[in-house]
Amino acid sequence: MTTNTDEQIHETAARAIAAGPQRVEASVLREITKISSQAGMISLAGGMPATDLFDIEGLHTAMNDAMQESADRALKYGVTSGDPELQQMIALLMEEREATVEAKSILVTTGASQGIDLIGRVLLNPGDVIIVEKPTFLATLNMAQLCGAEVAEVEIDSEGIVIESLEALLGRLRRVKALYTMPSFSNPSGRVLAEARRLRLLELAREHNVVVVEDDPYGELWFDQRPPPSLLSLAGRFDGDLACVHLNSFSKIMAPGLRLGWMIAPPPILERAEVVKQIADVHTSALDQTIALKYLESGRLQARLNVARASYGERARWLSEALRDDLGDLVEFTPPTGGMFLWCRLKHHLADPLAKEARQKNVAVIPGDPFFASPPRDQYLRLSYSMVTEESAAKAVARLAEAMATPHSHGSCS
Amino acid sequence: MTTNTDEQIHETAARAIAAGPQRVEASVLREITKISSQAGMISLAGGMPATDLFDIEGLHTAMNDAMQESADRALKYGVTSGDPELQQMIALLMEEREATVEAKSILVTTGASQGIDLIGRVLLNPGDVIIVEKPTFLATLNMAQLCGAEVAEVEIDSEGIVIESLEALLGRLRRVKALYTMPSFSNPSGRVLAEARRLRLLELAREHNVVVVEDDPYGELWFDQRPPPSLLSLAGRFDGDLACVHLNSFSKIMAPGLRLGWMIAPPPILERAEVVKQIADVHTSALDQTIALKYLESGRLQARLNVARASYGERARWLSEALRDDLGDLVEFTPPTGGMFLWCRLKHHLADPLAKEARQKNVAVIPGDPFFASPPRDQYLRLSYSMVTEESAAKAVARLAEAMATPHSHGSCS
Repeated sequence: MTTNTDEQIHETAARAIAAGPQRVEASVLREITKISSQAGMISLAGGMPATDLFDIEGLHTAMNDAMQESADRALKYGVTSGDPELQQMIALLMEEREATVEAKSILVTTGASQGIDLIGRVLLNPGDVIIVEKPTFLATLNMAQLCGAEVAEVEIDSEGIVIESLEALLGRLRRVKALYTMPSFSNPSGRVLAEARRLRLLELAREHNVVVVEDDPYGELWFDQRPPPSLLSLAGRFDGDLACVHLNSFSKIMAPGLRLGWMIAPPPILERAEVVKQIADVHTSALDQTIALKYLESGRLQARLNVARASYGERARWLSEALRDDLGDLVEFTPPTGGMFLWCRLKHHLADPLAKEARQKNVAVIPGDPFFASPPRDQYLRLSYSMVTEESAAKAVARLAEAMATPHSHGSCS
Repeated sequence: MTTNTDEQIHETAARAIAAGPQRVEASVLREITKISSQAGMISLAGGMPATDLFDIEGLHTAMNDAMQESADRALKYGVTSGDPELQQMIALLMEEREATVEAKSILVTTGASQGIDLIGRVLLNPGDVIIVEKPTFLATLNMAQLCGAEVAEVEIDSEGIVIESLEALLGRLRRVKALYTMPSFSNPSGRVLAEARRLRLLELAREHNVVVVEDDPYGELWFDQRPPPSLLSLAGRFDGDLACVHLNSFSKIMAPGLRLGWMIAPPPILERAEVVKQIADVHTSALDQTIALKYLESGRLQARLNVARASYGERARWLSEALRDDLGDLVEFTPPTGGMFLWCRLKHHLADPLAKEARQKNVAVIPGDPFFASPPRDQYLRLSYSMVTEESAAKAVARLAEAMATPHSHGSCS
């Protein structure tokens, strides 16, 4: 194969690209992720679960069990819907989370990311509308771009989605297929949707025949208080034609490298998602599924979750306190009550030049604009505390304060 | 969530399905795969690598190495393009296969299946044409349905794609974006594309600005004689604007449960494939990638490949000989020289009723029709010998002979 980068050499390839992928912008986060790994850099940029919280020993034991007891199952082709015993274990997990789900209603996915992608592929024709929170998860915006779907943004406040804003969108827009939301400890906003609003949201979705897509990877990572029941759980209280899809993941509570998630959906959607998944990757790694099964069977998850809740809670407090102490007049934020992100409004700075300046001071932060379909202005940062120590949190904020003190960080976006 | 299966209850979900997934027919193979696992059944239906050929010990050692030496890397988020060291090892593997490829030109995929899916998503607009062999890999036909692409079938003979047929299609059709082919030991036909034809195919693709997509999962599973160099390897001899994509997999030479494959593509296609893959699953399981890396580093693959070649060759001979001895006048086939499939033309029977009758006699076989975009007639069977013993091959063919002796198996397709 030629390695010549001359554009003429690759004209056929370049002209062959279809419309969907042409629309997707390369993620700005990737560049920042690269920068994060530079020597001396303190990163608040990542969206990564803390590696020091991985249960390496427990997972290694699960691997040995998988290979000693179930090597064939772990190594051969599996069925698209997922390992039946893992489906059962996930149903039990959902039961503990107050949602009654049959094992056969669960599709094991290659991370919750694949769940989002499948929702796009199964539901969205070009021109269909998907409603998302403002701001929302970046991958969902990219998925919509790839599908050629229109994105409508619903306002949020301290209690999550503002119901009046949702009502207005549903009243005004045609072709709304789905409402995508991360109701508990959203990435990037960290917000939790209040219970009364959850119920109201479900009523509205039923009334307007809109599919609710609940993405819940962070719901178990609460610090002091469990969030309200999931939309899936609450949907059980409703009669009639209410379509609720629930996406979830082992990435944040076990290990993201395994790429394991799940989708729960009404039969017509689940059946088509399985057909598309068969084309996409046949099935999720049987080895990883078998390891997760053995790990869940070992009963170690609950104890690890308690450790993770305490650790993330502590890290969130370190960052919140440092921000309040050092930058109290310059930023506004709601201290996180779960999850991995602190969403920070800049009162006098612009995020993009500030992030560039911060990089010079060896701290990596992510400007909030990519999380909006139509960026409101350059005034937010998403800060991840998942990997900080008390010392690094303080140092990162001190460096951010230095960056804020330079004239560039106030300048307009170039 | 409601488990009521009343259609009215799921009307919103049912009406929400987009056009693409509505077009895809549920695979007939899935039903047959279920039947294959029934007690007493001898299956020639699967497309599965033999579980008795898995290097369980070697893979388990690789897992221990991964967890002892590189647990963090195996468990945390990775980059979309793939583990850089695994990319390097794959580049070395390709070098041994006479193709010079830079590590950065390799995208690690979640099985070769994801490679096929990515090609569809990156290249095919609705109405674009993809040329495939007649017959071709079922998943590629499903991918084209999902994309809304037109499929054009090129004739094959004992040396693979008939160049005159390809020329005629390229001369006649507009909007041909890609030519998909499995040139070595094709699934389902088992055919090998002759070297002179490979070169001619590449010339034609360059002339008509068509992207060549080579899917090569079986190329290393030759019995007595290596197949001609891959299209990717031969493309290195060409100047100018020739776009060649190569898809490959560890499924047939290591273990399919790990879902590990790779794509090599010209920069414009690779870059967009990576963008789409980031939406699809962020990255392929870091754990599985690390295990594959450690396994490749262990140097055990070559010995296992030699065992696999000898074993599959022996199994192919058992089945070929039984067919020739017992059904010589009733079937026509080319004895396989590699891969996992024997493609069998029925001279006096119809495949669908025969397969049903065979099932009654406890042997599972797959009718060939699903491998055609426009089924020519109901006259082929795909027989997999990957899991047979000398005894089970003889018994399966004896049962098939019994099924052929019943009047139903001659009947027209119901």
